[in-house]
Amino acid sequence: MKKIAIDLMGGDFAPAEILAGALSFAKDFKDVELYLVGIEDNFKNVSLPENCKKVTVEDYLPMDIKPTEALRRKKSTMYQSCKLVKENVVDAVVSAGNTGALLACATFVVGRMKNIERPTLAVPIPTKDGFCVLADAGANIDVKPSTLLQFGVMGVEYAKFLGIKNPKVGLLNVGTEENKGTQKEQEAFKLLKEHFKKNFMGNVEGNDINMGKVDVVVADGFHGNIAMKTMEGTAKLIVDVLKSNIKKNIISAIGALLMKSVFNRLKEKLDPRKYGGTFFVGVNGIVVKAHGNSDRIAIYHALKVAKDGIEASLTSNIEEAIRNVWNSRYGRD
Amino acid sequence: MKKIAIDLMGGDFAPAEILAGALSFAKDFKDVELYLVGIEDNFKNVSLPENCKKVTVEDYLPMDIKPTEALRRKKSTMYQSCKLVKENVVDAVVSAGNTGALLACATFVVGRMKNIERPTLAVPIPTKDGFCVLADAGANIDVKPSTLLQFGVMGVEYAKFLGIKNPKVGLLNVGTEENKGTQKEQEAFKLLKEHFKKNFMGNVEGNDINMGKVDVVVADGFHGNIAMKTMEGTAKLIVDVLKSNIKKNIISAIGALLMKSVFNRLKEKLDPRKYGGTFFVGVNGIVVKAHGNSDRIAIYHALKVAKDGIEASLTSNIEEAIRNVWNSRYGRD
Repeated sequence: MKKIAIDLMGGDFAPAEILAGALSFAKDFKDVELYLVGIEDNFKNVSLPENCKKVTVEDYLPMDIKPTEALRRKKSTMYQSCKLVKENVVDAVVSAGNTGALLACATFVVGRMKNIERPTLAVPIPTKDGFCVLADAGANIDVKPSTLLQFGVMGVEYAKFLGIKNPKVGLLNVGTEENKGTQKEQEAFKLLKEHFKKNFMGNVEGNDINMGKVDVVVADGFHGNIAMKTMEGTAKLIVDVLKSNIKKNIISAIGALLMKSVFNRLKEKLDPRKYGGTFFVGVNGIVVKAHGNSDRIAIYHALKVAKDGIEASLTSNIEEAIRNVWNSRYGRD
Repeated sequence: MKKIAIDLMGGDFAPAEILAGALSFAKDFKDVELYLVGIEDNFKNVSLPENCKKVTVEDYLPMDIKPTEALRRKKSTMYQSCKLVKENVVDAVVSAGNTGALLACATFVVGRMKNIERPTLAVPIPTKDGFCVLADAGANIDVKPSTLLQFGVMGVEYAKFLGIKNPKVGLLNVGTEENKGTQKEQEAFKLLKEHFKKNFMGNVEGNDINMGKVDVVVADGFHGNIAMKTMEGTAKLIVDVLKSNIKKNIISAIGALLMKSVFNRLKEKLDPRKYGGTFFVGVNGIVVKAHGNSDRIAIYHALKVAKDGIEASLTSNIEEAIRNVWNSRYGRD
């Protein structure tokens, strides 16, 4: 039986929405056992189904917690959820808590994978015909060229997990020519080309991400974070401009009504809830970060993502891929 | 009389569209004298109005020219246009040629302003209620904290020129807290805070740019380039998704027709041609970079931008602002 721990106290709408999402997931997936990690209050007047286990701890982390502080507060729901993975009690953990705190717990409690320089936050990004994987999306803001290669390797395994066959890889840069960027990008370019050969499509620019020019966009976390957040802002600007102008006259308002199905499809395409959660990859277990503002639907999907990750053996696939890179670069490990 | 040089051979649609835009501008603004810098071929069978001067040179630069190569080809239309500024024959230059080449010519032919570490490509970015200025948008991919302060100072002068009173400044970063980013951002944060005081709003994230949280977004060119290009890609994704779904059924198609005025307003908001051209600031003269794919309308607007820059004394305003920073930091220069 697959086992997943869920942090009941992580997220803007914790604990109510987290619990609701977990219970609805537990109802639909009887082949999964959920470990609900919460404080005593969370379980008052709640009757749990058979495949849900109560894990009561003493502490929980506020949403603005610092990573170092998160590692000190060992009795928190987040820390203890991660510890369940470390101790092989569960196969995966889901949390909508603070990103930096979860990364710290993933890295130091669940534990970094052998030969991995930095775990990465790999995020699916909508493109014209589907999506691509952005790795890293903000977990590591200053990395080495070899780390960027590892992001590429992990990103490819993630893309395969998402159903993309033979993923194409690109390096986020300020131009497409080989000599673009700082020394770091230039060296990473060589490493990526050497490793991925024909599947490395070279440098890509910001406008190539949403166009789906490649399936895996390799970036240091600073660049990945700027790209991901800028997308969010631009999408919001466009929606806001449309909305405010639609209200200005009745003809447009009728037009908007007729276009409702189109707008719904656009919304669905851009909706992060559809993906539910994203993996921290490069650690010894499945760690799913759900959006901070997750409601019950998002939590349901995040748990589904965790379940899929377990079933696809994502962790061991990445382990093997990284071992291959390591061996080809440094000989047997 | 104001004098502007225009590079007839720069841009994807050179020389035809450049010439057409220049002639139409010359017709509307009799108080400006245009120096049309081209090769002999450009002037065949063309009769020029009184306020247009022919400047015939021997060479021109291809659109994929490298900056170093651009500086060697001294007989090119771009180089010679910039030289006219350097020699005070004209007050401004407009080119739709290669960005890196124009930056090189602006810096080394027109000449870097005193005390300026790096000239910057400052670009107006659409926001909910207007626009903000992004400095740097890709000219300098690896800069010092003090350079970021200068980008802020130049960005503020640019924002004032664009009509923004008392511009608010933000630093593009991966989070809003003061300690975010690498050492470079942390030091730049201190310098910006010290200089702009209450007008420095602290760190901003990618999603804050289009939301108009600040009037001037300070960024190193790598980050600025990623943000600007990502916006372009996201806007294109949204337009593509809307278009392809509208075609799928007749109801949506009718809706789209009724919403035409709304879509036009959105397009206008996002259209880079409206801004026409952007300044390279921090050099001893007005240098306007028009989009590489400029048509006659874009060139007309770019020339208008140059004219406005001359009339507002943009160059001397920046000179003075930078002198003030220099004096307050290092004593009299």
